[in-house]
Amino acid sequence: MADALRRRGMAERRAAECALLFAEASRDGVASHGLNRFPRFLRMIAGGVIDVHAAPACVSAAGALERWDGRRGPGNLNARAAMARAIALARTHGIGCLALGNTNHWMRGGSYGWQAADAGTIGICWTNTLANVPPWGAADPRIGNNPLVVAFPRVRGHVVIDMALSQFSVGALTEYAARGEPLPVAGGFDAEGELSHDAMAILASGRLLPVGSWKGSGLAFALDLIAAGLAAGHATHQIPRNPEQETTLSQVFIAIDPSTLAHEDLDRLADAAIAHLTTGEGDVRYPGARTLDIRARSLRDGVEVDPAIWAEVRAAAAG
Amino acid sequence: MADALRRRGMAERRAAECALLFAEASRDGVASHGLNRFPRFLRMIAGGVIDVHAAPACVSAAGALERWDGRRGPGNLNARAAMARAIALARTHGIGCLALGNTNHWMRGGSYGWQAADAGTIGICWTNTLANVPPWGAADPRIGNNPLVVAFPRVRGHVVIDMALSQFSVGALTEYAARGEPLPVAGGFDAEGELSHDAMAILASGRLLPVGSWKGSGLAFALDLIAAGLAAGHATHQIPRNPEQETTLSQVFIAIDPSTLAHEDLDRLADAAIAHLTTGEGDVRYPGARTLDIRARSLRDGVEVDPAIWAEVRAAAAG
Repeated sequence: MADALRRRGMAERRAAECALLFAEASRDGVASHGLNRFPRFLRMIAGGVIDVHAAPACVSAAGALERWDGRRGPGNLNARAAMARAIALARTHGIGCLALGNTNHWMRGGSYGWQAADAGTIGICWTNTLANVPPWGAADPRIGNNPLVVAFPRVRGHVVIDMALSQFSVGALTEYAARGEPLPVAGGFDAEGELSHDAMAILASGRLLPVGSWKGSGLAFALDLIAAGLAAGHATHQIPRNPEQETTLSQVFIAIDPSTLAHEDLDRLADAAIAHLTTGEGDVRYPGARTLDIRARSLRDGVEVDPAIWAEVRAAAAG
Repeated sequence: MADALRRRGMAERRAAECALLFAEASRDGVASHGLNRFPRFLRMIAGGVIDVHAAPACVSAAGALERWDGRRGPGNLNARAAMARAIALARTHGIGCLALGNTNHWMRGGSYGWQAADAGTIGICWTNTLANVPPWGAADPRIGNNPLVVAFPRVRGHVVIDMALSQFSVGALTEYAARGEPLPVAGGFDAEGELSHDAMAILASGRLLPVGSWKGSGLAFALDLIAAGLAAGHATHQIPRNPEQETTLSQVFIAIDPSTLAHEDLDRLADAAIAHLTTGEGDVRYPGARTLDIRARSLRDGVEVDPAIWAEVRAAAAG
């Protein structure tokens, strides 16, 4: 992937970092925003949507709060730089917030949660997206599924949640449809406007269900406004609707450094809370546990790749 | 309500403010955390759970981040003071964050979102609660339904979402059960472990559904850890399980002041986003619209009260 990016003009170190973020997503079990997404990323570079040379720049600052212009650079590099800056602000001010406008899809949102937690900070970040979900009460997409990431650092494995605000992503629905499996919970509406467990019917109607129905619908709208407002960027209704033209996204990155306050044993707290959460009947895992399992398996056995996509990336790296 | 509080030893001005927060909740259509909740509030004062004399105090500070001890004071007064301090921090640092431990139920969470937006700031706050929802994969309650509030200021009406992380609160389920109405979406599991639209069956099993199933389950857990960790307070697993003994809650209040950055017309942005959200087929409202409608009706026609509860409060005010 790094070779393919260099061949398209990306500077050596940036290409390595960008490729690493894709590879880490696949390693952690999120191939949809890892290797499998890479061919589209290259097409969006070729189409002029992503500028491989652009780096984000601060356009307004107020202590612990900053507004940056992503200048349509690679979304994952921009997001990583944004969270790094939020972490630096948190070291100084206890909390730091960076709003990033005019950027591209950040690929796996969880990356920036893990990044914050690896730095010992609490991370909260979200992005808007093109309109891909109908708000509660309508049948046509008017809100984004605006992924929200929340991370809490822990020595024995961070607590990280990375959730799109639709109950299922289009990618997840496609996988259920391909396997012919019913969804475990209703994931949207069929053509008749009935709540449905049929992934195929939901993909056909385009009526994905927001997380929590009216609740996620409202939350996605509010998070969109905050991101666009703080970043002086675009809100969902201003973002191109074609996925391969999706750009000018707005994002918020918040980091909180607990070590700036009087010492508190956060690890003991998290360990105890996880013990209470996971002990007892049923199969309960804490958010982040599955990622560590998949990561360990990948590091031991290698990362599974789709052979067709792998061949496509190898070809892109060669020419 | 203010008279009843004064009779129980609360100082004049604090009693007025505390009563106002209850009254405003009823005025805005949230009687469950307004007047209807007031008798329990008095019982918790009588039981020594709530200390009418206690005011919150800062115990650790780091620039834009502060940790406060709620000293088991009245939860709504503590929360209002906490958001006021977060707003003050945001005026100085762009963003402010206050973590409040050892506090009591904040009653209507939306109050603090409206408070932030009335001050022209973006507000984000959440609280943990006693364990009242089973995490995804279990049948017994181990997580709180940890309400999350997000507010965005707007001249023609703030955008405010106030959402518990269970699909329905116990109060809402009770109302559906009383009316014998089916829930519009699945709200939990019945005794057989099947997803159910039957409020009575869900109340009987105690298996409320987290918003977004596994997603809200993970989010509630992560928000609990952040609140308890930053506040050096209790996490859900440490909070007494009897609702009338529920205390030592942990909360986070974040305010962001967009006016500290270069000027951006947030009102125009919000108006345009709301126009796009609400225009077209179907009945779509922005979060906060319904509150303003109910508020206007209340201010015009008076606030509807439950006669039995009203009589109880009048008796408490008299003696």
